[in-house]
Amino acid sequence: MADIVHRIGVIAPLDDVYRAITTTDDLAAWWTRDTKSQDDTLLFRFGDVGGFDMQVKEADPAGRVRWLVTDGPEEWIGTDVNWRLEQRDQYTIVLFSHEGWREPVEFMYHCSTKWAVFLLSLKELVETGQGRPAPDDLQISDWH
Amino acid sequence: MADIVHRIGVIAPLDDVYRAITTTDDLAAWWTRDTKSQDDTLLFRFGDVGGFDMQVKEADPAGRVRWLVTDGPEEWIGTDVNWRLEQRDQYTIVLFSHEGWREPVEFMYHCSTKWAVFLLSLKELVETGQGRPAPDDLQISDWH
Repeated sequence: MADIVHRIGVIAPLDDVYRAITTTDDLAAWWTRDTKSQDDTLLFRFGDVGGFDMQVKEADPAGRVRWLVTDGPEEWIGTDVNWRLEQRDQYTIVLFSHEGWREPVEFMYHCSTKWAVFLLSLKELVETGQGRPAPDDLQISDWH
Repeated sequence: MADIVHRIGVIAPLDDVYRAITTTDDLAAWWTRDTKSQDDTLLFRFGDVGGFDMQVKEADPAGRVRWLVTDGPEEWIGTDVNWRLEQRDQYTIVLFSHEGWREPVEFMYHCSTKWAVFLLSLKELVETGQGRPAPDDLQISDWH
Protein backbone atom coordinates (compact mmCIF):
# COMPACT_ATOMS: atom_id res chain seq x y z
CA MET A 1 0.00 0.00 0.00
CA ALA A 2 1.17 3.52 -0.77
CA ASP A 3 -0.15 6.93 0.24
CA ILE A 4 -0.04 10.45 -1.14
CA VAL A 5 0.37 13.09 1.58
CA HIS A 6 0.33 16.89 1.49
CA ARG A 7 0.23 19.83 3.88
CA ILE A 8 -0.80 23.42 3.22
CA GLY A 9 -1.72 26.31 5.48
CA VAL A 10 -4.66 28.48 4.56
CA ILE A 11 -4.86 31.96 6.08
CA ALA A 12 -8.54 31.70 7.05
CA PRO A 13 -10.78 30.31 9.79
CA LEU A 14 -11.21 26.55 9.90
CA ASP A 15 -14.91 26.87 9.06
CA ASP A 16 -14.09 28.47 5.70
CA VAL A 17 -11.74 25.63 4.76
CA TYR A 18 -14.24 23.05 5.97
CA ARG A 19 -16.88 24.62 3.72
CA ALA A 20 -14.46 24.53 0.78
CA ILE A 21 -14.17 20.74 1.02
CA THR A 22 -17.79 19.93 1.85
CA THR A 23 -20.00 22.07 -0.40
CA THR A 24 -20.37 21.43 -4.12
CA ASP A 25 -20.22 25.15 -4.92
CA ASP A 26 -16.83 25.49 -3.27
CA LEU A 27 -15.46 22.16 -4.54
CA ALA A 28 -16.43 23.32 -8.05
CA ALA A 29 -14.45 26.49 -7.49
CA TRP A 30 -11.09 24.82 -6.75
CA TRP A 31 -11.13 21.21 -8.06
CA THR A 32 -13.41 20.76 -11.02
CA ARG A 33 -16.25 22.97 -12.22
CA ASP A 34 -18.29 19.85 -12.95
CA THR A 35 -19.03 18.83 -9.34
CA LYS A 36 -22.38 17.49 -8.20
CA SER A 37 -23.72 15.49 -5.29
CA GLN A 38 -26.17 12.61 -5.22
CA ASP A 39 -27.31 11.20 -1.88
CA ASP A 40 -24.11 10.73 0.16
CA THR A 41 -21.80 10.79 -2.87
CA LEU A 42 -19.84 13.58 -4.55
CA LEU A 43 -19.50 13.32 -8.34
CA PHE A 44 -16.39 14.98 -9.76
CA ARG A 45 -16.10 15.03 -13.56
CA PHE A 46 -13.26 16.18 -15.84
CA GLY A 47 -14.79 16.23 -19.31
CA ASP A 48 -13.77 13.43 -21.64
CA VAL A 49 -11.21 11.95 -19.29
CA GLY A 50 -13.83 10.81 -16.78
CA GLY A 51 -13.93 11.49 -13.08
CA PHE A 52 -14.41 10.19 -9.56
CA ASP A 53 -17.33 9.25 -7.33
CA MET A 54 -16.57 9.83 -3.67
CA GLN A 55 -18.81 8.54 -0.94
CA VAL A 56 -18.65 10.85 2.06
CA LYS A 57 -17.82 8.55 4.97
CA GLU A 58 -17.16 11.27 7.52
CA ALA A 59 -17.77 15.02 7.68
CA ASP A 60 -17.10 16.52 11.08
CA PRO A 61 -17.06 20.34 11.24
CA ALA A 62 -14.40 20.08 13.93
CA GLY A 63 -12.06 19.34 11.02
CA ARG A 64 -12.26 15.77 9.82
CA VAL A 65 -13.52 14.69 6.39
CA ARG A 66 -13.15 11.31 4.71
CA TRP A 67 -14.19 10.20 1.25
CA LEU A 68 -14.17 6.66 -0.15
CA VAL A 69 -13.62 6.39 -3.90
CA THR A 70 -16.45 4.23 -5.23
CA ASP A 71 -15.99 4.85 -8.96
CA GLY A 72 -13.34 6.24 -11.28
CA PRO A 73 -9.98 4.98 -12.58
CA GLU A 74 -9.33 1.42 -11.50
CA GLU A 75 -6.30 2.50 -9.41
CA TRP A 76 -8.48 4.88 -7.38
CA ILE A 77 -11.38 2.60 -6.54
CA GLY A 78 -11.31 1.62 -2.88
CA THR A 79 -8.78 4.28 -1.92
CA ASP A 80 -9.52 6.86 0.78
CA VAL A 81 -9.18 10.63 0.66
CA ASN A 82 -8.65 12.11 4.13
CA TRP A 83 -8.72 15.68 5.31
CA ARG A 84 -7.64 16.86 8.75
CA LEU A 85 -7.97 20.55 9.55
CA GLU A 86 -6.35 22.27 12.51
CA GLN A 87 -6.45 25.95 13.41
CA ARG A 88 -3.00 27.28 14.37
CA ASP A 89 -2.82 31.04 14.88
CA GLN A 90 -4.03 32.70 11.68
CA TYR A 91 -3.62 29.50 9.66
CA THR A 92 -5.88 26.55 9.10
CA ILE A 93 -3.46 23.70 8.55
CA VAL A 94 -4.71 21.12 6.05
CA LEU A 95 -3.26 17.62 6.39
CA PHE A 96 -4.33 15.73 3.31
CA SER A 97 -3.82 12.08 2.46
CA HIS A 98 -4.95 9.89 -0.39
CA GLU A 99 -4.43 6.44 1.08
CA GLY A 100 -4.47 2.84 0.01
CA TRP A 101 -2.96 2.79 -3.48
CA ARG A 102 -2.20 -0.85 -4.21
CA GLU A 103 1.02 -0.01 -6.08
CA PRO A 104 3.06 3.20 -6.51
CA VAL A 105 2.33 3.27 -10.26
CA GLU A 106 3.27 6.17 -12.53
CA PHE A 107 -0.32 7.41 -12.38
CA MET A 108 0.07 7.78 -8.60
CA TYR A 109 3.18 9.95 -9.17
CA HIS A 110 1.05 12.15 -11.46
CA CYS A 111 -1.87 12.32 -9.04
CA SER A 112 0.42 13.32 -6.18
CA THR A 113 1.70 16.37 -8.05
CA LYS A 114 -1.77 17.16 -9.32
CA TRP A 115 -3.23 17.04 -5.78
CA ALA A 116 -0.60 19.61 -4.74
CA VAL A 117 -1.68 21.88 -7.58
CA PHE A 118 -5.35 21.58 -6.60
CA LEU A 119 -4.61 22.12 -2.90
CA LEU A 120 -2.91 25.38 -3.85
CA SER A 121 -6.05 26.20 -5.84
CA LEU A 122 -8.10 25.53 -2.70
CA LYS A 123 -5.80 27.83 -0.70
CA GLU A 124 -6.23 30.57 -3.30
CA LEU A 125 -9.99 30.15 -3.39
CA VAL A 126 -10.39 30.50 0.36
CA GLU A 127 -7.87 33.34 0.70
CA THR A 128 -8.82 35.37 -2.37
CA GLY A 129 -12.22 34.11 -3.57
CA GLN A 130 -10.68 32.81 -6.81
CA GLY A 131 -9.46 29.24 -7.31
CA ARG A 132 -8.26 27.52 -10.46
CA PRO A 133 -10.48 24.48 -11.01
CA ALA A 134 -10.44 22.14 -14.02
CA PRO A 135 -10.64 22.66 -16.92
CA ASP A 136 -8.59 25.80 -16.21
CA ASP A 137 -6.15 24.05 -13.89
CA LEU A 138 -2.40 24.29 -14.30
CA GLN A 139 -1.15 21.75 -16.83
CA ILE A 140 1.84 19.90 -15.41
CA SER A 141 2.57 17.33 -18.12
CA ASP A 142 1.27 15.40 -21.14
CA TRP A 143 -1.29 13.85 -18.78
CA HIS A 144 -2.53 17.37 -18.00
CA MET B 1 9.00 3.32 5.29
CA ALA B 2 7.16 5.97 3.30
CA ASP B 3 7.93 7.70 0.02
CA ILE B 4 7.08 10.99 -1.66
CA VAL B 5 6.42 10.61 -5.39
CA HIS B 6 5.78 13.16 -8.14
CA ARG B 7 5.56 13.32 -11.93
CA ILE B 8 5.89 16.33 -14.21
CA GLY B 9 6.45 16.70 -17.93
CA VAL B 10 8.88 19.32 -19.16
CA ILE B 11 8.59 20.48 -22.75
CA ALA B 12 12.31 20.25 -23.52
CA PRO B 13 14.97 17.73 -24.50
CA LEU B 14 16.07 15.27 -21.82
CA ASP B 15 19.58 16.75 -21.79
CA ASP B 16 18.22 20.12 -20.65
CA VAL B 17 16.34 18.56 -17.74
CA TYR B 18 19.36 16.43 -16.85
CA ARG B 19 21.49 19.58 -16.70
CA ALA B 20 18.88 21.27 -14.47
CA ILE B 21 19.31 18.57 -11.82
CA THR B 22 23.06 18.07 -12.07
CA THR B 23 24.68 21.50 -12.31
CA THR B 24 24.86 23.90 -9.37
CA ASP B 25 23.99 26.89 -11.58
CA ASP B 26 20.73 25.31 -12.66
CA LEU B 27 19.88 23.82 -9.24
CA ALA B 28 20.34 27.34 -7.83
CA ALA B 29 17.88 28.65 -10.39
CA TRP B 30 14.95 26.42 -9.39
CA TRP B 31 15.51 25.06 -5.86
CA THR B 32 17.60 27.37 -3.72
CA ARG B 33 19.91 30.19 -4.78
CA ASP B 34 22.41 29.04 -2.15
CA THR B 35 23.57 25.85 -3.87
CA LYS B 36 27.19 24.72 -3.90
CA SER B 37 29.09 21.51 -4.47
CA GLN B 38 32.00 20.01 -2.59
CA ASP B 39 33.64 16.84 -3.87
CA ASP B 40 30.76 14.46 -4.63
CA THR B 41 28.22 16.32 -2.48
CA LEU B 42 25.69 19.03 -3.26
CA LEU B 43 25.10 21.60 -0.50
CA PHE B 44 21.64 23.19 -0.53
CA ARG B 45 21.05 25.98 2.00
CA PHE B 46 17.89 27.91 2.90
CA GLY B 47 19.13 30.78 5.06
CA ASP B 48 18.40 30.51 8.77
CA VAL B 49 16.34 27.34 8.49
CA GLY B 50 19.33 25.22 7.45
CA GLY B 51 19.57 22.95 4.47
CA PHE B 52 20.55 19.59 3.04
CA ASP B 53 23.76 17.83 2.00
CA MET B 54 23.19 15.36 -0.81
CA GLN B 55 25.85 12.90 -1.86
CA VAL B 56 25.52 12.15 -5.57
CA LYS B 57 25.35 8.35 -5.75
CA GLU B 58 24.42 8.14 -9.43
CA ALA B 59 24.38 10.57 -12.33
CA ASP B 60 23.72 8.93 -15.67
CA PRO B 61 23.03 11.28 -18.59
CA ALA B 62 20.66 8.65 -20.00
CA GLY B 63 18.26 9.91 -17.31
CA ARG B 64 19.01 8.50 -13.88
CA VAL B 65 20.15 10.55 -10.89
CA ARG B 66 20.25 9.53 -7.24
CA TRP B 67 21.19 11.55 -4.18
CA LEU B 68 21.68 10.28 -0.63
CA VAL B 69 20.90 12.78 2.12
CA THR B 70 23.95 12.85 4.38
CA ASP B 71 23.11 15.93 6.46
CA GLY B 72 20.06 18.08 7.20
CA PRO B 73 16.90 17.62 9.25
CA GLU B 74 16.99 14.38 11.21
CA GLU B 75 13.98 13.03 9.25
CA TRP B 76 15.85 13.46 5.96
CA ILE B 77 19.18 11.87 6.85
CA GLY B 78 19.57 8.51 5.14
CA THR B 79 16.69 9.10 2.73
CA ASP B 80 17.18 8.89 -1.04
CA VAL B 81 16.16 11.38 -3.72
CA ASN B 82 15.66 9.69 -7.09
CA TRP B 83 15.18 11.15 -10.53
CA ARG B 84 14.19 9.18 -13.62
CA LEU B 85 13.93 11.06 -16.90
CA GLU B 86 12.26 9.70 -20.02
CA GLN B 87 11.78 11.43 -23.36
CA ARG B 88 8.25 10.99 -24.72
CA ASP B 89 7.44 13.02 -27.81
CA GLN B 90 8.09 16.68 -26.99
CA TYR B 91 8.09 16.03 -23.23
CA THR B 92 10.78 14.91 -20.87
CA ILE B 93 8.86 13.05 -18.19
CA VAL B 94 10.34 13.42 -14.71
CA LEU B 95 9.56 10.65 -12.24
CA PHE B 96 10.69 11.89 -8.87
CA SER B 97 10.78 10.04 -5.57
CA HIS B 98 12.07 10.92 -2.13
CA GLU B 99 12.28 7.51 -0.53
CA GLY B 100 12.88 5.98 2.85
CA TRP B 101 11.11 8.25 5.34
CA ARG B 102 10.95 6.28 8.57
CA GLU B 103 7.49 7.64 9.46
CA PRO B 104 4.90 9.70 7.54
CA VAL B 105 5.31 12.62 9.94
CA GLU B 106 3.68 16.03 9.39
CA PHE B 107 7.01 17.35 8.11
CA MET B 108 6.84 14.74 5.32
CA TYR B 109 3.39 16.02 4.34
CA HIS B 110 4.89 19.51 4.08
CA CYS B 111 7.92 18.36 2.11
CA SER B 112 5.72 16.49 -0.36
CA THR B 113 3.77 19.62 -1.27
CA LYS B 114 6.94 21.70 -1.28
CA TRP B 115 8.66 19.27 -3.67
CA ALA B 116 5.72 19.70 -6.05
CA VAL B 117 6.16 23.47 -5.93
CA PHE B 118 9.89 23.19 -6.64
CA LEU B 119 9.36 20.68 -9.46
CA LEU B 120 7.04 23.20 -11.10
CA SER B 121 9.81 25.77 -10.62
CA LEU B 122 12.20 23.36 -12.38
CA LYS B 123 9.70 22.98 -15.24
CA GLU B 124 9.42 26.76 -15.56
CA LEU B 125 13.18 27.21 -15.49
CA VAL B 126 13.81 24.73 -18.29
CA GLU B 127 10.87 25.89 -20.41
CA THR B 128 11.20 29.65 -19.92
CA GLY B 129 14.66 30.30 -18.46
CA GLN B 130 13.12 31.58 -15.23
CA GLY B 131 12.52 29.43 -12.14
CA ARG B 132 11.38 30.42 -8.68
CA PRO B 133 14.06 29.25 -6.24
CA ALA B 134 14.21 29.94 -2.49
CA PRO B 135 14.09 32.46 -0.96
CA ASP B 136 11.57 33.61 -3.58
CA ASP B 137 9.67 30.31 -3.65
CA LEU B 138 5.90 30.12 -3.26
CA GLN B 139 4.93 30.12 0.41
CA ILE B 140 2.43 27.32 1.06
CA SER B 141 1.97 27.53 4.84
CA ASP B 142 3.34 28.74 8.18
CA TRP B 143 6.31 26.44 7.55
CA HIS B 144 6.97 28.37 4.33
